[in-house]
Amino acid sequence: DRPLTLIAGPCQLESRDHAFDMAGALKELSERLGIGLVYKTSFDKANRTSIGGKRGLGLEASLAVFADLRKAFGLPVLTDVHEPGQCAEIADAVDVLQIPAFLCRQTDLLVAAARTGRVVNVKKGQFLAPWDMRNVVAKIAESGNPNVLATERGVSFGYNTLVSDMRALPIMAGLGCPVVFDATHSVQQPGGRGGSSGGEREFVPVLARAAVAVGVAAVFVETHQDPDNAPSDGPNMVPLAEMEGLVRTLMAFDALAKG
Amino acid sequence: DRPLTLIAGPCQLESRDHAFDMAGALKELSERLGIGLVYKTSFDKANRTSIGGKRGLGLEASLAVFADLRKAFGLPVLTDVHEPGQCAEIADAVDVLQIPAFLCRQTDLLVAAARTGRVVNVKKGQFLAPWDMRNVVAKIAESGNPNVLATERGVSFGYNTLVSDMRALPIMAGLGCPVVFDATHSVQQPGGRGGSSGGEREFVPVLARAAVAVGVAAVFVETHQDPDNAPSDGPNMVPLAEMEGLVRTLMAFDALAKG
Amino acid sequence: DRPLTLIAGPCQLESRDHAFDMAGALKELSERLGIGLVYKTSFDKANRTSIGGKRGLGLEASLAVFADLRKAFGLPVLTDVHEPGQCAEIADAVDVLQIPAFLCRQTDLLVAAARTGRVVNVKKGQFLAPWDMRNVVAKIAESGNPNVLATERGVSFGYNTLVSDMRALPIMAGLGCPVVFDATHSVQQPGGRGGSSGGEREFVPVLARAAVAVGVAAVFVETHQDPDNAPSDGPNMVPLAEMEGLVRTLMAFDALAKG
Amino acid sequence: DRPLTLIAGPCQLESRDHAFDMAGALKELSERLGIGLVYKTSFDKANRTSIGGKRGLGLEASLAVFADLRKAFGLPVLTDVHEPGQCAEIADAVDVLQIPAFLCRQTDLLVAAARTGRVVNVKKGQFLAPWDMRNVVAKIAESGNPNVLATERGVSFGYNTLVSDMRALPIMAGLGCPVVFDATHSVQQPGGRGGSSGGEREFVPVLARAAVAVGVAAVFVETHQDPDNAPSDGPNMVPLAEMEGLVRTLMAFDALAKG
Repeated sequence: DRPLTLIAGPCQLESRDHAFDMAGALKELSERLGIGLVYKTSFDKANRTSIGGKRGLGLEASLAVFADLRKAFGLPVLTDVHEPGQCAEIADAVDVLQIPAFLCRQTDLLVAAARTGRVVNVKKGQFLAPWDMRNVVAKIAESGNPNVLATERGVSFGYNTLVSDMRALPIMAGLGCPVVFDATHSVQQPGGRGGSSGGEREFVPVLARAAVAVGVAAVFVETHQDPDNAPSDGPNMVPLAEMEGLVRTLMAFDALAKG
Repeated sequence: DRPLTLIAGPCQLESRDHAFDMAGALKELSERLGIGLVYKTSFDKANRTSIGGKRGLGLEASLAVFADLRKAFGLPVLTDVHEPGQCAEIADAVDVLQIPAFLCRQTDLLVAAARTGRVVNVKKGQFLAPWDMRNVVAKIAESGNPNVLATERGVSFGYNTLVSDMRALPIMAGLGCPVVFDATHSVQQPGGRGGSSGGEREFVPVLARAAVAVGVAAVFVETHQDPDNAPSDGPNMVPLAEMEGLVRTLMAFDALAKG
Repeated sequence: DRPLTLIAGPCQLESRDHAFDMAGALKELSERLGIGLVYKTSFDKANRTSIGGKRGLGLEASLAVFADLRKAFGLPVLTDVHEPGQCAEIADAVDVLQIPAFLCRQTDLLVAAARTGRVVNVKKGQFLAPWDMRNVVAKIAESGNPNVLATERGVSFGYNTLVSDMRALPIMAGLGCPVVFDATHSVQQPGGRGGSSGGEREFVPVLARAAVAVGVAAVFVETHQDPDNAPSDGPNMVPLAEMEGLVRTLMAFDALAKG
Repeated sequence: DRPLTLIAGPCQLESRDHAFDMAGALKELSERLGIGLVYKTSFDKANRTSIGGKRGLGLEASLAVFADLRKAFGLPVLTDVHEPGQCAEIADAVDVLQIPAFLCRQTDLLVAAARTGRVVNVKKGQFLAPWDMRNVVAKIAESGNPNVLATERGVSFGYNTLVSDMRALPIMAGLGCPVVFDATHSVQQPGGRGGSSGGEREFVPVLARAAVAVGVAAVFVETHQDPDNAPSDGPNMVPLAEMEGLVRTLMAFDALAKG
C-alpha cells in the first residue's frame, strides 16, 4: 500500500505559459506536501458537448509543450488519446496515456495504447459496471502491457447526473490494478447546462475524502487558477488556491486508510 | 461536531434472551471503545419481501423487553414504527422512533411519531432525492418536534440494487439535522434472492468508512452473532465478532474527519 | 383478451359536487365510446410532498359520496387505502381497493385489503423490479383473494425522475393478474417542484399508447376539468376536454394489440 | 408522416455468402410486405466486450461485399464507422453511415461522417439524455449535412441493464430529424454474461410495438437465421423466421399511429 499519488492539472492545455504556470505551482505544492504528482493535461477535448466548445491547443503544438514540461519540472505527464493512430506519437512525449471513459471499450484504441509500453490509465465508462472493467483491463494486459490504472469517474444515474459508487473501488482493485478516483468528473453533470456540461465543485472534497478513506492508489483532480473562466470543465474544477487544503486532508485520510 | 454515535443491534427482536445477549455484548464493546451506543431492534418486520418471512416477536411482547433492556443496560433503544396508532404506545418504551424508508412520506405516521416528543429517525426513501428530505423533516418539525435524525440508506439504482450517494450526507446535514449512515441497508439487494432480499456484507465497512470520512453524526450497523442463520437481513448484517474492528476503524476516521 | 378498461377520475375527492360532475362526465364519455369505466378518486392523499398539501375530504365524508356515486351512476369506484384498519370500512363503499406504490410491501395492509374480498389493485413501488411483484401478489392471493390487479407507475431513475419500463407489463402479466398502466403517475416528477411533485402531462398519451400497444387490461388516467388549478397532481392530470380523443386512440391501439 | 422503414440485417458481416443469403431473404420479405428496407451490417465490431470476441470481416473485404449487395439487390446499405479516417472510404460503398452509441460525442467522427454527404444515423449514447442529442445533431448539421437520423437504443439503468424511455422518441423528433428505434440493442444486457453481453430477445417485439405506437420513422432490428450461434449479439437478435410476423405487426401499428 504505497501512499496516495496526485494526478492534477487543468482540464485542457490552454497555452505554453498557462501550462508552465500550473505545472510549476503544482510541482511546488507536491514537493512541499510530499506527495507524488502526475501532471494531467489534454491536448484535445475530442468530445465536447457542443461543436463550438474549445478543444485545446492541438496535437503538434501540445507535444512540444509536454516535452518541455517534463524537462523543466521532471514531472510525469498524463494525457488522453482518442484514436489508435495517435498513440505511438503521443507516447514519446508523455508518461501515461489515458483512455477517455466513452472510449473504454474501443478495442483498437486500447491495444494501440497498450503497445506503446506506457502506463495506460483507463477511465471506466459511465455505462459500465465495475466488474466489467475486467474485460477492459484484459484487452490491455493481453496486448502485453501490465501497467494499467483503472479510474472511477461516476456512473450514469438518470439523466444529466452521475453517481459515485464507492463499492467500485475495491471491486476494481480486485482486478489487480491500481485504482484512481477522478473527483472532478465524478461531480460532472453531463449536458447539464444545455450547450455544455455542468458540475458541482463543492462535492469534489466530499467524494475525494470518501474514496481515499475506502482506499485508492491515486486521486485525480482538475484544477485551475480561475475555474469559472476556464474553457472547459470549469464548474467542476477546484481553484488552485484550494488545492493545498484539499490535498493535505486527503493525505491524512490516506495515511489512516493504509496505516 | 460531536463524536460518532453507533446505532447497532440485530435486525429483529428474536427473543428476550437473544436481545439481552446482543445488547450486553454491544454495551460492553461500546464502553470499552468509548463510543455512544443506541440499541436498535425491530419488534415487527412489516414489509418482508415474502408473506412467509419471519416478522419478529410482535408489539406487546417486545415492549416489555425494550423496557427491560433499558433498565438493565441503561441503553437508549431505537425501534421502527409502521402505523400512526402505534407511536404513542411504543414511545413509552423506547428513546428513538424510526420511520422506515418506504414510509418516509406517510404524513400521518410522521406527525404521530413527532407528537410523542421522542427523537424521530427518518430513513430516506429509496425513491427520494436527498434535497426532498427537506419536506420530510419539515413534516416532523412543524408538528412541534425538532429532534429529527435523517438516515441515508441507499437509493434505487436499476433493479434489485441500491447505490449510496455520498453527496446526500452533506445535503441532508444542510437541513439542520444530524445525519446517520445506515451501512447495513445500503448494501441490501432488494428482492435480490427472489423470495427475500440479498445483500453484500463485505461492502459494509467500505461504505461506512466512506460515509464517516465525509462526516456523519452516527453510523447504523445491524449485527448478529450468526448472520447467516438470522431470520432477516442476514446477508447484510456484520458478524458480532467483527464489530470491534469495524467500530475502531470508524472512530479513527471520525476523529480525523471532525478534528 | 378482454377489451381495455378505463380507470379514471380526479386525483382527489374535492367535494360532492365536483365528484358528481366528474363522474357524470366520465360515465357519459365511457358509454358513448363503449369502454368499461372504473371511477378513481382518493379520500385522503396521505403522502403529499409537503405537510401543507391538501389531502382531500377525509374518510367519513368521502364514504357517503362514494356510495352515492355508485348508486347514481352505477359506476364501480376505486380508492386507495393507507392503513390496515381502514380496509374493512372502505370496502363497503367501493369496488376496488388500491394499494399505493410506497406501501406495496406493507404486509398488514395487503392482507387487510385482501381479506375484504374486494378487488385489490397494487401499484408497483418505484423501488421495485417487476419480477418482485410476484411476492406482493402472493401476499394477497395467499390471504385468500385471487382478485389482484398489478399497476405499473414508473420506476426510480436518478433523482426526481421516473422511467416507464414497458418490459414490466408482460413480466407482471406473467404473474397471472391483469395489468394496469398508470399513465398519470408514470409522468410524475417526484418532488420536482421543491414543495410538490412536478409532472409532464404531454407524455401521458405517449406512454399510454406505448403501454396499450404492448397490451394491458386497463389504463389509469387522472383527469380534471382544470388541472392547473387542481389541489394535487395537476401537472400530470389530463384535461377532461382531452379525454375523449385520448381514449379513442387508446381503444384503437387496444383493438389492434388484442385483435 | 411517411410509413415505417425497416433497418435490418445480421449484427456483423460474417461472409459474402451469409450476407447474400440474409440480404436476399430480407429483400424478398420487404417486397412482399411493402416496407422500405435498409440493409444493416457491420464490417468491424470495434467495441466487443472481450478482446477475443469476433470482429467481422474487416474493412477492405467488407466494402467489396457492400458494393455487390447494393448492385445485386438494389438495397441501401448501412454500416457503422469508428474513426474519422474511415468515413470517406466507407461512404463510397454504403448509403448510411452509423455512429455507434459510445462514440456519439466524438466530434471528429461526427464531422467526418457529416462531410461525406451520406445520411448519418447517430445512436444516442447509453449515458445521454434525449435532449442532449440536440448538440450531437448540431455537430453534424453545422458541418453542412442535414441528413441526420437519431436512434434510441436504451439508456443505462443500474448495472448491466438498459431501459427504453419512450419519451425519448418525441423529444428527439422535436430536434427535427427522423427517429429510429433500435429494438435489438435496447434489450441488450451490457456485459451481462461476463465475457460478452447478454440480451433478452423476447422483449424485442414488446419494445418495438411500443415505439412504433408512439411513432417512429424506422425500426432497427438485427436478425439472423440462427442467432444462438451468431458471433455477436446472438441473445438479442430475432430469428429470421420470426421477422415476417414481427414486421407485419409493426406495420399495422405504424399505420394506426400515423393514420
